[in-house]
Amino acid sequence: MTHFSPTEHSHRRRNPLTGEWVLVSPHRALRPWQGQQEAPQPVATIAHDASCYLCAGNTRVTGAANPDYQGTYVFDNDFAALMGSVPEVATQNDALFALAPARGTSRVVCYSPHHSHTLPQLSPAAVRQVVDTWAEQTTELGRLWRWVQVFENKGAAMGCSNPHPHGQIWACDFLPNEAQQEDQRQHDYYLAHGRPLLLDLVDAELRAGQRIVVQTEHWLAIVPYWATWPFETLLLPRFAVQRMEQLTPAQRDDLALALRELTARYDNLFQCSFPYSMGWHGAPYHDEARAQVKAAPSWQLHAHFYPPLLRSASVRKFMVGFELLAEAQRDLTPEQAAERLRALPARHYLED
Amino acid sequence: MTHFSPTEHSHRRRNPLTGEWVLVSPHRALRPWQGQQEAPQPVATIAHDASCYLCAGNTRVTGAANPDYQGTYVFDNDFAALMGSVPEVATQNDALFALAPARGTSRVVCYSPHHSHTLPQLSPAAVRQVVDTWAEQTTELGRLWRWVQVFENKGAAMGCSNPHPHGQIWACDFLPNEAQQEDQRQHDYYLAHGRPLLLDLVDAELRAGQRIVVQTEHWLAIVPYWATWPFETLLLPRFAVQRMEQLTPAQRDDLALALRELTARYDNLFQCSFPYSMGWHGAPYHDEARAQVKAAPSWQLHAHFYPPLLRSASVRKFMVGFELLAEAQRDLTPEQAAERLRALPARHYLED
Ligand SMILES: O=P(O)(O)O[C@H]1O[C@H](CO)[C@@H](O)[C@H](O)[C@H]1O
Ligand SMILES: O=P(O)(O)O[C@H]1O[C@H](CO)[C@@H](O)[C@H](O)[C@H]1O
Repeated sequence: MTHFSPTEHSHRRRNPLTGEWVLVSPHRALRPWQGQQEAPQPVATIAHDASCYLCAGNTRVTGAANPDYQGTYVFDNDFAALMGSVPEVATQNDALFALAPARGTSRVVCYSPHHSHTLPQLSPAAVRQVVDTWAEQTTELGRLWRWVQVFENKGAAMGCSNPHPHGQIWACDFLPNEAQQEDQRQHDYYLAHGRPLLLDLVDAELRAGQRIVVQTEHWLAIVPYWATWPFETLLLPRFAVQRMEQLTPAQRDDLALALRELTARYDNLFQCSFPYSMGWHGAPYHDEARAQVKAAPSWQLHAHFYPPLLRSASVRKFMVGFELLAEAQRDLTPEQAAERLRALPARHYLED
Repeated sequence: MTHFSPTEHSHRRRNPLTGEWVLVSPHRALRPWQGQQEAPQPVATIAHDASCYLCAGNTRVTGAANPDYQGTYVFDNDFAALMGSVPEVATQNDALFALAPARGTSRVVCYSPHHSHTLPQLSPAAVRQVVDTWAEQTTELGRLWRWVQVFENKGAAMGCSNPHPHGQIWACDFLPNEAQQEDQRQHDYYLAHGRPLLLDLVDAELRAGQRIVVQTEHWLAIVPYWATWPFETLLLPRFAVQRMEQLTPAQRDDLALALRELTARYDNLFQCSFPYSMGWHGAPYHDEARAQVKAAPSWQLHAHFYPPLLRSASVRKFMVGFELLAEAQRDLTPEQAAERLRALPARHYLED
């Protein structure tokens, strides 16, 4: 009789940060691919593009002009999903038609004036500046709003058509679904175990080794046990910290190294500019009554990377049918994904 | 002072079937589009494609040959995500690394031998046969498994490269995330109100009118108040029913009409073969102890349609960054989407 093997047989794994399960079907990795090929994204190399609305000195569609910036540059999103000036509306707590107010700030963060240098191609000092900008923005927006979502959509496969390296910040006066779940789960774990969930996870992953992708002095990137995207990673501090602004200079420098290495490994996997959505989850800034709060010790700062590619620079995983209607499903196991990323050079394939 | 208007100002709405919120930012619909254009899918017209693995008489990649079928044709998925023969594994209820067994059956359902006729292009009798096939399969697989997920991924934008009209069924011995949430929420509502949530919703939507897309004798399609996808719809019976096999012949005939009209309106919106993921949610067949159960009266059979298109046949909504890390976000309001779909002819644009 065959014994159960997680690298061969279907099973489910639970995400402790959300409580959601993922269906793992490793044998599906064997099927021939008949699905869609993405148009592979040509690697951009130019330093300045006159038609780019993010390049220094250019004029945006609203008529506003970008300064001749060096390093990072932050501005309010011209088509903000969240704005501060929404007229008052009462929360409508109806069983069928519930409505709640939503206010906030939406910003764009250019990582560099160079039109084509994504994170792994920036110098460690330049990535460190991105980290500092994220931290400053988070502090500033955390004074105003309950939740500050720093994120980056990269690549056409993730709906981003502009290769100019940039991310966004959407800060809001409510705790979004994902934040709410992570807050609750980290809190529950802390009550039960007296330690932050994500610090216990770091220890367990350092012992296990098999899901590690990047390990630096202060940071650890793993393919989480419950990853839904094929090459999803979770970037974790190896120390207790709740919010980005608490990071020391040494932890920030080291984070820049970890970010460069992780994104270089991603690019190296299929020798392309690897698309993803990534973002930071730090502790909420206000409670439900809108009072400013100190970060709970249960919360650990962390970043999620959700890349869509599955088999090559042009074959992606679709989160469709079964995923939308029932449950996320993945083919290769998280351990297999981590092994592949770990086997690659840490240095970017275009670096000389 | 301006007053709050849901068609102008950001707000959140709650999905009563899942408890999740969606951020609505209607003013974003005004921004110029700089995002990705999908390659518009050419409308297929041929009746038989020798290279199609779903056409009648053709041989599939595994060597199996399709019969010379008429009407619908069902076979076991050659690269099944779920299989019956997985070796035993104990549930591992660890706080960080939880694992559970996953067994089931994966099938493919061809809707018609005609390579190019999607649902709105099939005759009412042919769509009725699809409904009967769904009902038969659900009954058969419900004897074996706890949950039967009937679904269809349509179009390259939804990861489906074969235009041959077909859907899938993944049945499993566990209640997937979405099913679990809907089960709980419908149960809670029933306890509190003594009526099924989705029957109360039908009444409320018939009264309101503004979110209705298709209304037949027995069925109602609406853009739900909490829709996340731009033109998402929810197809609801106007009578109490828990599972597909309980539908009477008259209710099935009428469902075929509703399905044809809904999918015709979708195709008419951007004059293209409208991509979507759709699927049915009927009551679970077994309880947690794997004992067969009668359907709970709280559960109402329903179908979800999740189409990705936003602005044209080639401009889609991306559920990325903020959506993956925080909360779903939409631009146009559900009422605006319903109005647009309602204003279109009920007859398919290619029908003569
Ligand atoms: O039909 P396929 O090609 O097996 O697979 C497709 O549908 C599945 C179920 O929705 C998804 O998990 C896959 O990502 C998608 O490509
Ligand atoms: O950056 P954009 O073009 O405003 O918008 C992009 O990111 C947003 C936040 O993740 C998503 O809601 C949009 O669907 C996506 O196109």
